[in-house]
Amino acid sequence: MPEARVRDVFRVPVGKPVDLAGVDPAGTPVGPGGKAAGVAATAALGPRLAALQDRLYAASTAGDRRSVLLILQGMDTSGKGGVVAHVVGQFNPSGCRITAFKAPTPEELGHPFLWRIRRALPRPGQIGVFDRSHYEDVLITRVRELVPRRLLGRRYGQINRFEQSLADDGVTVVKVFLHLGFEEQRKRLLARLDDPGKHWKFHPGDIDERALWPAYQHAYELALERCSTDAAPWYVVPADRKWYRNWVISRLLLEHLEDMAPRYPAADFDVAECRARLLAQ
Amino acid sequence: MPEARVRDVFRVPVGKPVDLAGVDPAGTPVGPGGKAAGVAATAALGPRLAALQDRLYAASTAGDRRSVLLILQGMDTSGKGGVVAHVVGQFNPSGCRITAFKAPTPEELGHPFLWRIRRALPRPGQIGVFDRSHYEDVLITRVRELVPRRLLGRRYGQINRFEQSLADDGVTVVKVFLHLGFEEQRKRLLARLDDPGKHWKFHPGDIDERALWPAYQHAYELALERCSTDAAPWYVVPADRKWYRNWVISRLLLEHLEDMAPRYPAADFDVAECRARLLAQ
Repeated sequence: MPEARVRDVFRVPVGKPVDLAGVDPAGTPVGPGGKAAGVAATAALGPRLAALQDRLYAASTAGDRRSVLLILQGMDTSGKGGVVAHVVGQFNPSGCRITAFKAPTPEELGHPFLWRIRRALPRPGQIGVFDRSHYEDVLITRVRELVPRRLLGRRYGQINRFEQSLADDGVTVVKVFLHLGFEEQRKRLLARLDDPGKHWKFHPGDIDERALWPAYQHAYELALERCSTDAAPWYVVPADRKWYRNWVISRLLLEHLEDMAPRYPAADFDVAECRARLLAQ
Repeated sequence: MPEARVRDVFRVPVGKPVDLAGVDPAGTPVGPGGKAAGVAATAALGPRLAALQDRLYAASTAGDRRSVLLILQGMDTSGKGGVVAHVVGQFNPSGCRITAFKAPTPEELGHPFLWRIRRALPRPGQIGVFDRSHYEDVLITRVRELVPRRLLGRRYGQINRFEQSLADDGVTVVKVFLHLGFEEQRKRLLARLDDPGKHWKFHPGDIDERALWPAYQHAYELALERCSTDAAPWYVVPADRKWYRNWVISRLLLEHLEDMAPRYPAADFDVAECRARLLAQ
């Protein structure tokens, strides 16, 4: 039986309205149906991911300009950091470039919103990861009304043109919305409060953001429907089950890397002659 | 039985002459004596390393300025990249900053040799890793006579002052020389030639460098003896056995992190009140 293409199951269709309430954040529509099988399946993907990354990096040393950019978005506790630890952690760290975007600094605010994004892009051969991204500039900025609505409205088009330019430059952009349930977020925030080792991850402001849940869901729906393009589609990944989220994103990355099919470059030197020189030393 | 402190076994004593010929690159003076036990012991250290890294990062969010900088030096094929993949890969990648230093670019050559190094330092809470480093500026530059001997002689002192300043700033510097045998390097280079998937890692120039092996060993001896300081000691790690090298460096990092004893910061908010607010939402 051929494996279902995860990218076909979770991709947001181009130009269609998005209704997040219609997607079960605890769903497991394809793939392993239980935790033990899911954890094992993800672990089995690790070596395949690392092998493809090795080829991608190797190819870049011979002029292949391609790279991958995984963009992670989602509400607090949706698992962006967990994906970096457990999915991205399966790659060779030397070929990864991970950036966590926080509230913009004064210097960043003095530039166009894509300025800090451009500075963090993966180089050829790299796996880039954004923990939050330029989408914050149409999410919290919309919900909190941080910029005039007129400027906000332009940003979706700016983002689409920017991401098209990335695709043109050989960047495979994989945008993942970690779709978390309202109740599951409560559980995870309470768990942070119950563990003194996790207090540093908690901010009382998280509760204020949570109070704006419907506005955030709406802002995400707009971003997903306006910015899921052929060049850079969005994927809505159920995030209530951590093991499932990790499996889906591992599969997504695998499918994209397999489609890229990076190849080890051929030797540009005389292998037999080098062998002879080495044996003579 | 208390575990032997790896740092005491492999540290280069301050101010003593170094004789690399007297150190067995295939030796396993402490710790596991065989591959299976060594691989298992390293795997068991992974969760302990990640847990300490989590504390170090957490502490940085509350003002702890400390960080770790692992510096890897060694001849071609000595395993610098392997350490990044298999030892550094045990950490959460989001808290790592890895830099591979290549031959300096024209821009880098237009600055003092420590310029590019300062730009790659770990931030508070991070584990920084240098795959090659400022030591290249007293190694290949000495062997290849790329700078006047007079300037070269000054660099050891500059390096020591620089590393002292890092220590003053809270950076725990762990400098590892991967001590590889001449015959083992030949084997590894031949293995690269025998595997088309590894041709991209091979450069005919590697054979020319290998021809200068004694000069490199001497340059390393000088760097180790002049720059092993109390603030930033050197460790000579036997590198012929990959599993042993990985275990030693994992232990070295563990011992340093344990000595740093980073602590989770206390909550700066009212936990009970936040819990009540969450339950009311």
